[in-house]
Amino acid sequence: MSINSFGHLFRVTTWGESHGPALGATVDGCPPGVAVDEAALQGWLDARKPGQNKYTTQRREPDAVRILSGVFEGQTTGTPVQLLIENTDQRSKDYGDIKDKFRPGHADITYFQKYGIRDYRGGGRSSARETAARVAAGGLARAALRRLAPAVSISGYMVQMGPHKIDRDRFDADEIARNPFWTPDAVAAADWALYLDGLRKSGNSCGAVIEVVARGVPAGLGAPVYGKLDTDLAAAMMSINAVKGVEIGEGMAAAGLTGEANADEIFLGNDGQPVYSSNHAGGILGGISTGQEVVVRFAVKPTSSILKPRQTITRQGAATEIVTRGRHDPCVGIRAVPVGEAMMACVLLDHLLLHRGQIGDAGGRLG
Amino acid sequence: MSINSFGHLFRVTTWGESHGPALGATVDGCPPGVAVDEAALQGWLDARKPGQNKYTTQRREPDAVRILSGVFEGQTTGTPVQLLIENTDQRSKDYGDIKDKFRPGHADITYFQKYGIRDYRGGGRSSARETAARVAAGGLARAALRRLAPAVSISGYMVQMGPHKIDRDRFDADEIARNPFWTPDAVAAADWALYLDGLRKSGNSCGAVIEVVARGVPAGLGAPVYGKLDTDLAAAMMSINAVKGVEIGEGMAAAGLTGEANADEIFLGNDGQPVYSSNHAGGILGGISTGQEVVVRFAVKPTSSILKPRQTITRQGAATEIVTRGRHDPCVGIRAVPVGEAMMACVLLDHLLLHRGQIGDAGGRLG
Amino acid sequence: MSINSFGHLFRVTTWGESHGPALGATVDGCPPGVAVDEAALQGWLDARKPGQNKYTTQRREPDAVRILSGVFEGQTTGTPVQLLIENTDQRSKDYGDIKDKFRPGHADITYFQKYGIRDYRGGGRSSARETAARVAAGGLARAALRRLAPAVSISGYMVQMGPHKIDRDRFDADEIARNPFWTPDAVAAADWALYLDGLRKSGNSCGAVIEVVARGVPAGLGAPVYGKLDTDLAAAMMSINAVKGVEIGEGMAAAGLTGEANADEIFLGNDGQPVYSSNHAGGILGGISTGQEVVVRFAVKPTSSILKPRQTITRQGAATEIVTRGRHDPCVGIRAVPVGEAMMACVLLDHLLLHRGQIGDAGGRLG
Amino acid sequence: MSINSFGHLFRVTTWGESHGPALGATVDGCPPGVAVDEAALQGWLDARKPGQNKYTTQRREPDAVRILSGVFEGQTTGTPVQLLIENTDQRSKDYGDIKDKFRPGHADITYFQKYGIRDYRGGGRSSARETAARVAAGGLARAALRRLAPAVSISGYMVQMGPHKIDRDRFDADEIARNPFWTPDAVAAADWALYLDGLRKSGNSCGAVIEVVARGVPAGLGAPVYGKLDTDLAAAMMSINAVKGVEIGEGMAAAGLTGEANADEIFLGNDGQPVYSSNHAGGILGGISTGQEVVVRFAVKPTSSILKPRQTITRQGAATEIVTRGRHDPCVGIRAVPVGEAMMACVLLDHLLLHRGQIGDAGGRLG
Repeated sequence: MSINSFGHLFRVTTWGESHGPALGATVDGCPPGVAVDEAALQGWLDARKPGQNKYTTQRREPDAVRILSGVFEGQTTGTPVQLLIENTDQRSKDYGDIKDKFRPGHADITYFQKYGIRDYRGGGRSSARETAARVAAGGLARAALRRLAPAVSISGYMVQMGPHKIDRDRFDADEIARNPFWTPDAVAAADWALYLDGLRKSGNSCGAVIEVVARGVPAGLGAPVYGKLDTDLAAAMMSINAVKGVEIGEGMAAAGLTGEANADEIFLGNDGQPVYSSNHAGGILGGISTGQEVVVRFAVKPTSSILKPRQTITRQGAATEIVTRGRHDPCVGIRAVPVGEAMMACVLLDHLLLHRGQIGDAGGRLG
Repeated sequence: MSINSFGHLFRVTTWGESHGPALGATVDGCPPGVAVDEAALQGWLDARKPGQNKYTTQRREPDAVRILSGVFEGQTTGTPVQLLIENTDQRSKDYGDIKDKFRPGHADITYFQKYGIRDYRGGGRSSARETAARVAAGGLARAALRRLAPAVSISGYMVQMGPHKIDRDRFDADEIARNPFWTPDAVAAADWALYLDGLRKSGNSCGAVIEVVARGVPAGLGAPVYGKLDTDLAAAMMSINAVKGVEIGEGMAAAGLTGEANADEIFLGNDGQPVYSSNHAGGILGGISTGQEVVVRFAVKPTSSILKPRQTITRQGAATEIVTRGRHDPCVGIRAVPVGEAMMACVLLDHLLLHRGQIGDAGGRLG
Repeated sequence: MSINSFGHLFRVTTWGESHGPALGATVDGCPPGVAVDEAALQGWLDARKPGQNKYTTQRREPDAVRILSGVFEGQTTGTPVQLLIENTDQRSKDYGDIKDKFRPGHADITYFQKYGIRDYRGGGRSSARETAARVAAGGLARAALRRLAPAVSISGYMVQMGPHKIDRDRFDADEIARNPFWTPDAVAAADWALYLDGLRKSGNSCGAVIEVVARGVPAGLGAPVYGKLDTDLAAAMMSINAVKGVEIGEGMAAAGLTGEANADEIFLGNDGQPVYSSNHAGGILGGISTGQEVVVRFAVKPTSSILKPRQTITRQGAATEIVTRGRHDPCVGIRAVPVGEAMMACVLLDHLLLHRGQIGDAGGRLG
Repeated sequence: MSINSFGHLFRVTTWGESHGPALGATVDGCPPGVAVDEAALQGWLDARKPGQNKYTTQRREPDAVRILSGVFEGQTTGTPVQLLIENTDQRSKDYGDIKDKFRPGHADITYFQKYGIRDYRGGGRSSARETAARVAAGGLARAALRRLAPAVSISGYMVQMGPHKIDRDRFDADEIARNPFWTPDAVAAADWALYLDGLRKSGNSCGAVIEVVARGVPAGLGAPVYGKLDTDLAAAMMSINAVKGVEIGEGMAAAGLTGEANADEIFLGNDGQPVYSSNHAGGILGGISTGQEVVVRFAVKPTSSILKPRQTITRQGAATEIVTRGRHDPCVGIRAVPVGEAMMACVLLDHLLLHRGQIGDAGGRLG
């Protein structure tokens, strides 16, 4: 990762601020011959789009993505793909009152401390709007995966809202698309709706935990010892706004297990490939994929822009109080679900290309 | 991060296998004029060195570090610093029985799947011995920090062993160096000794959680949106062997908080710098340091090389059972403490240089 | 350099094709607080703009540059700057006849061989239109240099057209802006006009040599041994379309000198800084700037798109003849002058930031 | 290129000073399964080794290379390969008199200006001894090429010494290994011996031009627009000590040609692959290989360490005269021949891996 870029060979650079004319992603290193068009990318963006229900910000952005380069007659050409999304609903006046105040828990103060100047409108570069560019790039990565590794499928969903976790026994993959929280637990969805209504009305907010699973990932992706698949996934997820923790497989809970309990025993499957008794490892051993499901979870902190008055200071150093009116998500974790999926897609494609580059088809096979 | 390198400007590339002639770190981009010698680095390595008590592997490595380049008359010259550690106590015969078997929970199988060839002696490149090179590089980073940012201090310690957490009310910084577990809780240290003795005798192992705190970090380090300080810390920690989760500040628990509870309110300190009512953020907002303590935690899974027999397969695809004799730590988390500190030092120095490069002294000041 | 990006800290990624909707540059790592606006950048682009006289392509592009991000209230914010230039005068029909034919000396065939697909319209990504994005990025680099190193000035000019060299005794810096060839030799300008008229009428083309000089460059920029200032300048210039040779100082002629003749003897100047008896080195020793003028030259091959019929093959493998009608510069070297200046500006700024990052103000001073 | 590293996927970092304990190359990203051992690498190093005849420095270094990692049972494992060469014949006393004086034309002064400290013994990091590490890495690259692209062969030779060029009509590939100058022209070899004897006796030195040709390079290597094959070759060659100019194909002479003369016309060969009427392009169009011979030339300036007294200053700023005794090559260009070959090998392998990573076998084929 290098400032505003990530990825080794499939390299995504995002740019743009919340209230500038546009934002986007410059994607370098995409394989040629990948079938993609604006409509395909738009489908992913629409999932992340704000204003779709009462649980997300009421800012109304069409988030229409345009492909400005690198695609010719419906296929990628192997040259950089520029994905541009215009900002259309910037109400800068909403933010005038925070021009000189720093919101607690927000990047306002650190951007000022770092740069000496900040685009205060809507959080500028630190706004979650940046993630729209990631989703667009992730859509391109998915299109490339469909061509290069068609068995790969990626699914993200919410497993915790505020303190409330799902019940894994009620896990229903079909439920994910049926509720506004992308959760596989219908009962939790109903409970969370009430919980979030209460928070929203009181001007408060909450955090969330999102899980992203990739199936069909070939064994052998990832590279020791700093380009590990889990290292890159951790960086990818931690780079998303408001994320404070990342877990692979058992995650933090791995600390509490014994070696005996944690060992995913290995057997030979009918197809001559290894099968495992369990997946504590989250599909990654020594930084390299095993062929099992790759499982990542990340925690999103509660939205820091809230209506509750909080103590803060001004740029001039005076004590003051702040109430952030604007249009904010009571739980930014909801819209982080498609973002997490997009990051997973980008990381997997990148490692697929890296592996092909260094190894080609020289990997090991049992027998 | 790029395969076997990490860092943007202070760039560390480690190399070497557990049972080859040597391993080491090639460090590029170190500032010139930093006072350092082999003795200074050796101090850090001795802390990580195996065989110091009954809770770590009985392999006896002096881990003597040599500086082969980049230092002249006791100071760095600004050219690459090669840090070399010879392997002297390789008992390859210990590992002969795992030449063709894959240890569950270990990188044996994935290295084979990726490369088609693996140095099976002691885990080869996937061995935790690689972390000796990190500690050496971290020692160099600390020497540079002492010159460039003398207020910075870094402290790592264990906060959980297996399922047993410390009691934060008993936190005593002086205790950390007094017990073999680097824990600040003397009562926990005593309890853990009993717990670990039991595990060791039964041929089992356990995981751990390590916390690393950096004090005196100037505000403004880190860069949006993929070169964030927390992104690079997450990658740095996740790249350590056996790590399965990384947290900044509240970490995964941030999900359970409300925005009101999570907001670190801002006040003006007597020195004209911001002070905060709390540090849920772990010293990082928007990926940029606030000037508060930078707090990172990571979970280490239990050692996978255990004496308990486990089901596995051979390279030829036959079902078999494996018992890993060798000389292994019952809790690799113990030796991960100095490694986590080393990674923190490298990341902070790297971001200090990055910040100086892009910003110089143009950062913002209150008032 | 990494596929479509160049620079270490001031990192420019260009994107876009000749006949797509737009092209541009994504610039990451620009220092904050740099005063810049679209008008300032437009000035540099207008110098490179085609169709200004009969010696350059008659394609009429306004080449209007828009700043989409990273600038707020007239200053850079330190976040990525997106520079976008729309294509408006794409006459794709001009190129229909080369859809399936490969122009000799052109990238048509290699793009096809590499990617299996190519945007044949106007050469796609291989078109010299890409250099407009470089000029825009170079304008930003100049604005940053003005703030960080105001003594730096950059001047490019043509020293050879086809076989005809300038007479260095007639060198007049004021003349450079007065003729369409950016040459400092008024007599050569007149001669070249006749020469180029002849070539143009016969449907032929010619090459050129451009020299770019930077004055006021501080000593100490550049880094051993692969990030040398001359290494990066060589890469920067060789990456420009149609460039086949790059020279620093004496360049290829250095081979013909003796050590005695080539030595730039050193004296102490009145200001306590070193002065040199000569500048055979082109201002760079050991890859690091000396404080003298940095002197780079590069050769541009003759335009390969000519009206002279040439033998070639089709994509299907059939022998054929090709005549490239389109709208092409008889000497692309003319428009390469501002491009070379832009690359010099980007490389110098990048190395200034790199130096500041690693060294700060710890460099050596005489006395 | 990044300070002391070069290459995208096959990434070489060299380290070490002329008079430190050792120097070497850390090579990351080598494909696994490549047969290589120390003897194979030693063969390439012996060609570059000093002291073999009266035309190179009389320093007696065995330049014995050791492989410390990344090779197991005679094959690369895909992990970093550490190549170490010990320095054994350091006569530091030879250099005591230049401790505080700056040699004109040498990096002494710029290293001091940059770093404020320099290892003055033998030029430290700026010594041509660094190129031994390149030759070792190049040997590894050749071994990998033999496996991945066995048709590739690389040949370097000297085409000019001082002002004296070879006669291309006398080009005899077999002659190259028969004379101490690696020149294909036997008559030139005899003339140059006399010329160089004279220079050596008078304490002077001269420059040279080296040409490196790669045959059997597959079409399609290289990537627009900053990762071009010629861009990376230019950087690779310019990074070699004392190089002042780099040319691809016609090089600087391309400026003097017309488009008609410069066009390499295309025909279809009997094997269904394109054949060309000529190779003005040096095997590269649009930055991508055509399948023809890849032809690079570079000029090496005369050795700056000469016995002729030259005016200079001391570190304290006093005027003085300098005579460099030491043991120096009268023409460093001689030993640059194997270095140029090594850089060609590294760049080709790197681009082969990059191409495989992004494109796989999706490249275009005629017909």
